[in-house]
Amino acid sequence: MTAPDAARPEPGCPLCAAAPAGLLWESPQIRVIAVDDAGLPGYVRVIWRAHVSEMTDLSASERRQLMDIVWRVESSQRRILQPDKINLTSLGNQVAHLHWHLIPRWRGDPTFPGAIWTTPVRDPERLAAWARHCTDLAPRVTALHQAVRAALRTPQ
Amino acid sequence: MTAPDAARPEPGCPLCAAAPAGLLWESPQIRVIAVDDAGLPGYVRVIWRAHVSEMTDLSASERRQLMDIVWRVESSQRRILQPDKINLTSLGNQVAHLHWHLIPRWRGDPTFPGAIWTTPVRDPERLAAWARHCTDLAPRVTALHQAVRAALRTPQ
Repeated sequence: MTAPDAARPEPGCPLCAAAPAGLLWESPQIRVIAVDDAGLPGYVRVIWRAHVSEMTDLSASERRQLMDIVWRVESSQRRILQPDKINLTSLGNQVAHLHWHLIPRWRGDPTFPGAIWTTPVRDPERLAAWARHCTDLAPRVTALHQAVRAALRTPQ
Repeated sequence: MTAPDAARPEPGCPLCAAAPAGLLWESPQIRVIAVDDAGLPGYVRVIWRAHVSEMTDLSASERRQLMDIVWRVESSQRRILQPDKINLTSLGNQVAHLHWHLIPRWRGDPTFPGAIWTTPVRDPERLAAWARHCTDLAPRVTALHQAVRAALRTPQ
């Protein structure tokens, strides 16, 4: 059996596709993507480039390599955005190609303290305050992207 | 500043509480818990015992130690339960004490392919089939708990 290879994309897999939007950094093994979601400021996705499904499909050394990038991005998110919490998830139920979601959370966001997949609150005042907060955060999101690029420039 | 210490629980934190139900394994740093949720067979929680909030509050060596346990549990879940997917999440929005959810998922479960926090399907046939599947899985969940205990007996 040949190990999955990033140079051999799985037909139809969106995460195997070349040149994704929002690319912040890539190595032969890993891609780091700024997710363009105005309602989730600072959301970053870290993708293992070869088409594998689970963390335990990787070798121990590959897992360490991937998680080291996750921790570096989390550090940048905390330092630059100062969110109330970081949410880390690896689901892959819809696209079974290994990737991590790194989602900064704030107490006032529309699904806090639930996961982002819960039903958002309807309270218009809270939603308006959150919209203002997202606008205020925009320059810091740009700074985050610069910080992630800088943090990942240093060799592992 | 003194580093958080598992021997100094945070008042009111449920994950700092001693002797949790479903304990499968513990070390001075980590607890592994079988989550008793009949609708989520094989759900396991891995908890860092000291009261810290984020993965990047740990040292690199502590992170490796914690994630090594997560990967061992995931391996046992895959081997024993053969789910369609493993979901890994570290949220902590409600209880900001570092812990991981390891959730085996099946295509027929009521929220698949969403996260488990999405609204479940209402289709009675699918729900009945899922209930039967949970009953069928029960002996394998018991086997999983034994496998996790055995896997974690080996020193790190």
